[in-house]
Amino acid sequence: MPSLDNLLAAHQKMMRHTRASDLLTDPDQRHRPLDFTLGETLFVDFSKHPVNDETLSLLVQLCRDAGLENKRDAMVSGAPINTAEQRPALHMALRSGPGARAYHADGEPVSQIVHGVLSDIEGFCADVQAGKRKGATGRPFTHVVNIGIGGSDLGPRMVCQALRPYADTGLEVRFVSNVDPSDLEQCLSDLDPAATLFVVASKTFTTQETLTNAEAARHWLNAKLGLDSSDVAASGAHFVAVTAAPDRAKAFGIEASAIFPFWDWVGGRYSLWSAIGLPIALAVGYPRFAELLSGANALDEHFISTPLEENIPALMGALAYYYRNYWDAASHAVLPYDQNLEALPAYLQQLEMESNGKSVTTDAAPVAVRTAPVIWGAAGTNAQHSFFQCLHQGTDTVTMDMMAAANSKAADQGQHKILLANFLAQGQAFLEGQDQARAKSRFLAKGMSEEQAELAAINSQIVGNRPITMMIYPELTPWVLGALIALYEHRVFVQAVLCNINPFDQWGVELGKVLAKEILPALTADKPVTVDPSTQALMDRLKDWQS
Amino acid sequence: MPSLDNLLAAHQKMMRHTRASDLLTDPDQRHRPLDFTLGETLFVDFSKHPVNDETLSLLVQLCRDAGLENKRDAMVSGAPINTAEQRPALHMALRSGPGARAYHADGEPVSQIVHGVLSDIEGFCADVQAGKRKGATGRPFTHVVNIGIGGSDLGPRMVCQALRPYADTGLEVRFVSNVDPSDLEQCLSDLDPAATLFVVASKTFTTQETLTNAEAARHWLNAKLGLDSSDVAASGAHFVAVTAAPDRAKAFGIEASAIFPFWDWVGGRYSLWSAIGLPIALAVGYPRFAELLSGANALDEHFISTPLEENIPALMGALAYYYRNYWDAASHAVLPYDQNLEALPAYLQQLEMESNGKSVTTDAAPVAVRTAPVIWGAAGTNAQHSFFQCLHQGTDTVTMDMMAAANSKAADQGQHKILLANFLAQGQAFLEGQDQARAKSRFLAKGMSEEQAELAAINSQIVGNRPITMMIYPELTPWVLGALIALYEHRVFVQAVLCNINPFDQWGVELGKVLAKEILPALTADKPVTVDPSTQALMDRLKDWQS
Repeated sequence: MPSLDNLLAAHQKMMRHTRASDLLTDPDQRHRPLDFTLGETLFVDFSKHPVNDETLSLLVQLCRDAGLENKRDAMVSGAPINTAEQRPALHMALRSGPGARAYHADGEPVSQIVHGVLSDIEGFCADVQAGKRKGATGRPFTHVVNIGIGGSDLGPRMVCQALRPYADTGLEVRFVSNVDPSDLEQCLSDLDPAATLFVVASKTFTTQETLTNAEAARHWLNAKLGLDSSDVAASGAHFVAVTAAPDRAKAFGIEASAIFPFWDWVGGRYSLWSAIGLPIALAVGYPRFAELLSGANALDEHFISTPLEENIPALMGALAYYYRNYWDAASHAVLPYDQNLEALPAYLQQLEMESNGKSVTTDAAPVAVRTAPVIWGAAGTNAQHSFFQCLHQGTDTVTMDMMAAANSKAADQGQHKILLANFLAQGQAFLEGQDQARAKSRFLAKGMSEEQAELAAINSQIVGNRPITMMIYPELTPWVLGALIALYEHRVFVQAVLCNINPFDQWGVELGKVLAKEILPALTADKPVTVDPSTQALMDRLKDWQS
Repeated sequence: MPSLDNLLAAHQKMMRHTRASDLLTDPDQRHRPLDFTLGETLFVDFSKHPVNDETLSLLVQLCRDAGLENKRDAMVSGAPINTAEQRPALHMALRSGPGARAYHADGEPVSQIVHGVLSDIEGFCADVQAGKRKGATGRPFTHVVNIGIGGSDLGPRMVCQALRPYADTGLEVRFVSNVDPSDLEQCLSDLDPAATLFVVASKTFTTQETLTNAEAARHWLNAKLGLDSSDVAASGAHFVAVTAAPDRAKAFGIEASAIFPFWDWVGGRYSLWSAIGLPIALAVGYPRFAELLSGANALDEHFISTPLEENIPALMGALAYYYRNYWDAASHAVLPYDQNLEALPAYLQQLEMESNGKSVTTDAAPVAVRTAPVIWGAAGTNAQHSFFQCLHQGTDTVTMDMMAAANSKAADQGQHKILLANFLAQGQAFLEGQDQARAKSRFLAKGMSEEQAELAAINSQIVGNRPITMMIYPELTPWVLGALIALYEHRVFVQAVLCNINPFDQWGVELGKVLAKEILPALTADKPVTVDPSTQALMDRLKDWQS
């Protein structure tokens, strides 16, 4: 019997010249339209993919053979599925409310401590909003600056931007991440120190960028407010910590009641549901943060209990794996038709590329498949006037996700309909493309000469048949956003299972950190360091230019 | 004699297991270090690439065989090198100052009209800054909103952000592009209409997004300032147009003295040097805009007159083509170590993907090579905590550009040195990687057990040898930024020549526009439209949710 790998390769050869537009109307190819819904709220449509019943059946078999259901259940049970680090991965526990599924880490119950921290966050947000929490001069806070990087930045940043229409707490939340001093400097330039609260978010509380920026923020507060800079606690009222290392936060001068914990079974890029989401709760209010968790929980329950044939993240993940490994798709574009979701591609870039950008299997062997693609994208309609040319007429297969809400919170619904018309039209164009004859007739109708029309038509051919998933929902509420993010988290998990890699570690980022620590003294104090000749030449020239 | 294509393929097979770190110290492989400078100010370093003298010699031959020099000279001469549209591509003319090279479009001199418009821009900026230009209520302007999309947005947006430290004119410049009403609404939410000037930038002055937003902006002005909405000229003082269709701008109600032209020999994505750059001049002052042009001009002259062997954009473009077609590199990452250059990847994404995302040659035949890769990226150090995991340990070849300034305009030079240490360290890590033995010794030194260290080391292997170009400069001045952007423009041109495609048209974006116009009435007025069943189902559900 041929292996599933061979079957999929043969199937792809058969399907590569099949048009999805033909499959749409052929009940022999598809026994049902390929759309799926979560609670009548999130509509996920695979119908524009060049796939048929046979494709899906093979992909479901692939998931089964890879042990997806068992591995998913192991994750839910709190087993140490983060193998190389021997830890569970329990982000799902963070969004399972009281009365819902109870989670355990290595056998120990965790749901109660999760709910305890959420309750602390709720109380803290209420106090800040009510002006009960005050700065060093007795002023209530009007601005919050989150200092974090990677998983302590991208999630809350993206969600705060996405939920801008809900930001009615009176607290303006900003984000600083880069060690480049321009980032903090720009952020603070128009802020009133007396009314500014800093959230310092770092799992280890040793992250170089975050601690450097936190120190600089304290320096700014002390200088501006005339506080005693020899007393780390003097500006303590202006700092909150979110960390799995509370002792280090205390040593920084942050008071115990302002330290929110999370745990080593929460990966940074899966952590916006934990206290890392504090800036979200401050921006939109705790009840909406709870709705976000609730939407994610609904998707979790769908992932846990839906048969693979109807399981949205399983199908999305399996399709992604299929295109990556059988269609040579090296990248995946995320195209939200929603300006407020502009930061979603950057968020998903970390989620998927840091999780699955690996070359070693869970059995410590070299991988034999292609792992994470490049994730990129931008908001529509902006992207139409930028890189869509390449998506329509480029030489590579790029898979795509497009998403849009039926209704906008903006006042101008007419303009929102223009946005939706573009969303639908691009989906149609990616599906159907345009052959030379059709293009030519359009140009002739515009009054071009035969010769002009012929040349223009050759340049206007669009292959179409691009693999595209379209997602719609009534409105981008906190609930919908939570479900959408959780959908991607599980999609990434499914891809990891199919590649047989561990999505919860990131050993590859350590080397650069080690080398940066070795190089820094050479830049600041002329200490000798042994580096390659290329790096040496760059360093010498940078230092020349500095003097 | 074997073809150059065969020679390059054979060469790649030989080089694929060669380590760039070995080539660095081998004079038999490289007769000189692979770094190049432009006027002692821009230092471009190819030394971390796995290439030797033979590679470069083959690539120079490839450029010669493709007629690069002739095609470059044809561009300079103003010949209609945008073949399918029969137009010259003369962005270089926009930055050639008085007394410098004179340019002609189809034989007609253009430099004088270019300088005339620049002089008008200079005068206009001075008037706005001095408060001589006033709004409808007699108030001077404090804020400028650029309404444009694609080439009328990404360039000035990126440059304004990059040159933030120079923004001392007292005018705050913002950008609106998306037809999503959230974009304009968010932008206007805290603006004073009496002091707000809108720049409406559209080559055709028919761009759907831009005109829709411009109308909405006028509606906002009229409503807030109590102007006569039946008189298009009532709010005219608040509008400037930048367009190649001045009559349409006049019909919109914009006065002639506030309409700045550009020409059909300037492509949208090559237009920031034209009046499209007006927001830049307003933000940082005209003299700095002129410096930006001057830096670009210096790079142009380098491109025009330097032998290919030392020609920086030619080498960059040829290397890009080589990795794309012989190393299977599907994407290229742009990684500025500079928070102010955060928007550079998005800018270059349009520049390259819209220029070279083509499948038809200049001879109207199907291309036989891979054209534009996906361009993506983010600012370091942020990116280190996001997708660098995948760059270090993923399964694909991704080519990369990294860039940094020796000096920052921010106050904290110590923090800037941490940024530079990371920049250098990542370059080193991408070059050298880390083998299992080296990783293991690091873990053993940390006190891990033999077994733990072994497992951690397997997961910490980094192949290295990633193709990376590193660029440094004393400071990100307007001049350096201009040179940097022009370098990428010519790099894109070189790649187009090697692919034998036309980088100056974009036929692929038209179909979506046509279809969106057909679909819109179905959404707004229930007019029937014939679409595929998938698009129909999405439209039906969106409409259901709207009612």
